[in-house]
Amino acid sequence: MKYLSSTLFITIIFLTLSICTDAQIVYTDASKFPLIGKITTETETRYERLPTYLKDKVSRPAIWTLGKNTSGLAVLFNSNSTSISAKWEVLNNVKMNHMTDTGIKGLDLYCWKDNQWQFVRSARPEGKVTEQVIISNMTAEEREYMLFLPLYDGVSSLSIGVDSTAFIALPGILYTDVENPIVVYGTSITQGGCATRPGMSYTNILTRWMNREFINLGFSGNGQLDYEIAEVMAQRKDAGLFILDFVPNVDEAKIKERTKHFVNIIRKKNPLTPILFMESIIYPHSVFDMQTARNIVAKNAALHTEFETLKEDGDKNVYYLKGDNLINKDGEGTVDGIHLTDLGFQHIAKTLMEKINSILQ
Amino acid sequence: MKYLSSTLFITIIFLTLSICTDAQIVYTDASKFPLIGKITTETETRYERLPTYLKDKVSRPAIWTLGKNTSGLAVLFNSNSTSISAKWEVLNNVKMNHMTDTGIKGLDLYCWKDNQWQFVRSARPEGKVTEQVIISNMTAEEREYMLFLPLYDGVSSLSIGVDSTAFIALPGILYTDVENPIVVYGTSITQGGCATRPGMSYTNILTRWMNREFINLGFSGNGQLDYEIAEVMAQRKDAGLFILDFVPNVDEAKIKERTKHFVNIIRKKNPLTPILFMESIIYPHSVFDMQTARNIVAKNAALHTEFETLKEDGDKNVYYLKGDNLINKDGEGTVDGIHLTDLGFQHIAKTLMEKINSILQ
Repeated sequence: MKYLSSTLFITIIFLTLSICTDAQIVYTDASKFPLIGKITTETETRYERLPTYLKDKVSRPAIWTLGKNTSGLAVLFNSNSTSISAKWEVLNNVKMNHMTDTGIKGLDLYCWKDNQWQFVRSARPEGKVTEQVIISNMTAEEREYMLFLPLYDGVSSLSIGVDSTAFIALPGILYTDVENPIVVYGTSITQGGCATRPGMSYTNILTRWMNREFINLGFSGNGQLDYEIAEVMAQRKDAGLFILDFVPNVDEAKIKERTKHFVNIIRKKNPLTPILFMESIIYPHSVFDMQTARNIVAKNAALHTEFETLKEDGDKNVYYLKGDNLINKDGEGTVDGIHLTDLGFQHIAKTLMEKINSILQ
Repeated sequence: MKYLSSTLFITIIFLTLSICTDAQIVYTDASKFPLIGKITTETETRYERLPTYLKDKVSRPAIWTLGKNTSGLAVLFNSNSTSISAKWEVLNNVKMNHMTDTGIKGLDLYCWKDNQWQFVRSARPEGKVTEQVIISNMTAEEREYMLFLPLYDGVSSLSIGVDSTAFIALPGILYTDVENPIVVYGTSITQGGCATRPGMSYTNILTRWMNREFINLGFSGNGQLDYEIAEVMAQRKDAGLFILDFVPNVDEAKIKERTKHFVNIIRKKNPLTPILFMESIIYPHSVFDMQTARNIVAKNAALHTEFETLKEDGDKNVYYLKGDNLINKDGEGTVDGIHLTDLGFQHIAKTLMEKINSILQ
């Protein structure tokens, strides 16, 4: 080696660098890695939210369809690769005019760095099937990753790609506490409409900020206090907290008619678990639309009455969060007056985290 | 009237209310109302940004095409209608996977309320042509409105609808100072990629916050220091400030080669107007992507050298804004590591406003 000519030596270095740079991407099926955010593992396929037994038993077909959306689900893995890629197929190739495709059916990669989850980069979907380098040119260090799945579409297959010269493995350290998950039931807002990328729904933000598993049971337009969903929630007797964020999807009458029974279903199997009631956000356009303004006031008041009744009936573990500080007071937190943007989601996550900490302390 | 039976009286009230509720929507062509945000009125059609004379003279066809995008343009009007509707046709029905259709080709309505511009609601596009009620159920008060146009598409026609029983008129008070506009030149970020709705691009936020006309000359992927754009800018001798935000679209060599000449073109006709140089934002994914990190550092350093040279050459009216506090330090201000979300845009607007105020005071 000592006698290796300098030209040859340089050639070898160049070849080695070139091999490193041109390293093939090797894909591993993501089913090999842990998945967080599911209420149950007994589902038709891996990447969905509702138990198989509900298939023909939901109140409306839409609930079952929305259960196949992967909101709140994230894959955890560890790798020393200089690049991370993904190959994934979505179920329905959903499109909406007020939400990005990246939020609807893209992926969102985070990495544990300096004691917190740091945004790495999102993967922008190109149709039903996408293959994409998410990040490259990293130093070859071992890192813990969290990959958030689509908010408003399903995933029929998912593989994660790393350099052929690198490893990909189970998480070395599980930074997310999965012992006592926080289960959140609600609407399109709960499901993540209209975050620009999967990591920016409020349950996914809180998963990162609180290092705790959040289970997302948001059903766009269908958070209508359906009792079969309360049954599913009730089965998670290890839950640390149940959050109920359904008001935008029900009218005053339904709140009065269904809230108590919905809560009773959860309570039967979880007599002491804290339950947090969330009021509806104050839609920014209700500053002008008087009918919407009156409607929000009436529905929030109806929720408050239900909450007070439950307390008067002796439930010491119910909590309440008013709607007036859920989103930005400057009126800028939504895309359409109703659905939150990343600005709105970061604000609601801050308010909720404070409340959750005060409940769980 | 005194003797009108109470039943008849109630019937009349009901009929009147019903007429008010069912009021027809009457449309007025928006060309009747003032438009802000244009560098010149000498354009091929009303809703575009570049002067007609440039049509066959741009460095690249993309610049001309992007000039037809209506980023930064807003229509001002006054009405006492209880509802505001819009009917508009877009040029190209553009779609992108990391920006909402609402931001690309929707409309965004604001109203002057409590001494500031307050978000009313956005209009979500349904294709090439859309007709939509933006807001309804308002009290029948006279109000001043600002309607922001699409960020990433053109507008071939636009009408504003109000109740048949109401009026629509020229602005009663012009809250936006159009005397000394601030002209901003740059990239996709400048153009508003990827705000969720038109009002959330940084120049549109600043138009509202500073009650001042901002002229948006952001050209997605094409803020490449093209001298013909400097010529267009130079003609606005009434400009209060020129902002140059081109770094993300040029490499180090181009910064060195073109900055001075670009500035000289503006300077020839505007010897004393302040010019603000903006560094590139620090892309959040550059925390991991070392090549991107090095690239940003090198390009920002090259810009700083150009700035220092101009100062040394005796220009006392050049200013500089570093890139390190332009977007959220938590890494959450973008959709894809590069293009800002509403979260990123609100942050960059705050930083810029502070800087602009310090320059103009």
